[in-house]
Amino acid sequence: MPLVRISLLKGKSKAHIRAIADGVHKALVEAYDVPADDRFQLIQQHEPEEFIYDADYLGIHRTDDLVIIQVTAGNWRETATKQAFYKAVADNLSENPGLRTEDVFISLLSVQRDDWSFGKGVASYVKEPAPV
Amino acid sequence: MPLVRISLLKGKSKAHIRAIADGVHKALVEAYDVPADDRFQLIQQHEPEEFIYDADYLGIHRTDDLVIIQVTAGNWRETATKQAFYKAVADNLSENPGLRTEDVFISLLSVQRDDWSFGKGVASYVKEPAPV
Amino acid sequence: MPLVRISLLKGKSKAHIRAIADGVHKALVEAYDVPADDRFQLIQQHEPEEFIYDADYLGIHRTDDLVIIQVTAGNWRETATKQAFYKAVADNLSENPGLRTEDVFISLLSVQRDDWSFGKGVASYVKEPAPV
Repeated sequence: MPLVRISLLKGKSKAHIRAIADGVHKALVEAYDVPADDRFQLIQQHEPEEFIYDADYLGIHRTDDLVIIQVTAGNWRETATKQAFYKAVADNLSENPGLRTEDVFISLLSVQRDDWSFGKGVASYVKEPAPV
Repeated sequence: MPLVRISLLKGKSKAHIRAIADGVHKALVEAYDVPADDRFQLIQQHEPEEFIYDADYLGIHRTDDLVIIQVTAGNWRETATKQAFYKAVADNLSENPGLRTEDVFISLLSVQRDDWSFGKGVASYVKEPAPV
Repeated sequence: MPLVRISLLKGKSKAHIRAIADGVHKALVEAYDVPADDRFQLIQQHEPEEFIYDADYLGIHRTDDLVIIQVTAGNWRETATKQAFYKAVADNLSENPGLRTEDVFISLLSVQRDDWSFGKGVASYVKEPAPV
C-alpha cells in the first residue's frame, strides 16, 4: 500500500539508487507492517537548481547526498511505529549505500483504507462491494 | 480542485499520455463531482530504475504499462464515491489508450476546502474573506 | 518542516526558478510560522504534454507561466493563516519573478508532528524517545 516518492540529486549510480529504494522498502516491511510484495516506488533525480535544502536545519548537517523520501501509507500507525520506521530507514541506508543518517529526510502522508486502488478499478482494501 | 499526478515509464507516445490524462479527468467529472473545467494534471515519465513496482501484489498482474495516479482532492467523498471513481478510471483507460485494468493504480489524498488557492492569492473555496 | 513541490513548464531561467522558490519560502516564513532555515523544496520542470491546466477555471485566467505549488506542512494552521499564506505567496511571486497572481496555484497537504524525520532516523518533532 505505501506509495513511496524518493527524490535526490542527479549523478548517482543506478546501484546507489537501487540500494536506497531497497532500503526504504526493507524498512517498511521490517517496521511498518507492510507486506514484502507491496512495493510501489517513484524516484526523481533533480538538477541542483531543482533540489533545495537547508544544510543545517535542527542542527543536522546535510550534504548533497541528501535523500528526501515521502511515503503515502495507511493512517493506522502509532507514533512508536513511525519512530521505528524512521530508525529502520536510516539504519538501512547507512548500511547500504552508506549514507550518513543526517542525509535521510522522511515525510509521511496518511490516508484511509478506501483511498487505494491497486488495479482492476476496485477499492482494494474495502470489503463492501461497490454499489451498482 | 483535484491536483492529479500521473507517473509512468518513459517511451509512450504523446497520444498515449494524453489519453490517460483525458481518461482520468473524465472519470473525475463523471464519478467524483468535479467540474469539467477543474483540471490540473502533472505527468512524470520515469526511467526504468526510477519506476519500481511489484508485478503481482494482491494477485493483480501488472506490466510496464502500469500507470500510478495520485489524486489530491476534497475530503468530503464517501467510500462509494471513491469506488465509483476507481471503476470509472479503469473503464476509461481500458477504452483509451487500451490499458489493462490491472495496470491502473490509484492513490487518493484528501484535503479540506481551505487547502486550495487557484490563483490571485486567495483561498478559493473559503467564503469568509481573509482577515486584514 | 514544510516539504514543498513546485511544478512549472520547462524553459524558464534558473533565476526565474530560484525567485519562485525564494518567494514561496519567504511566504512560509512571513505568514506560516516556519523557521527561516526550515527549507526543503523540490522543483519539477515539465514538457508541455506533461503539464495540463485549465486556463480559466473559476474565472481565473492562467498562462504558461503557471506555477503549481504543493506544500506538505503541519496541520495546526487555521484557515486565516492559510489565507495569509496564499496572499504572501502571490504577493512575493508577483514582485519577483513578476508572475501574474492568476498564475499561482497552491495546494496544501496537512500532516501531524510525528510525520517528520529531518535526519538521524528520529521523529524530529516528537518529544518522547522512541521505544526500545
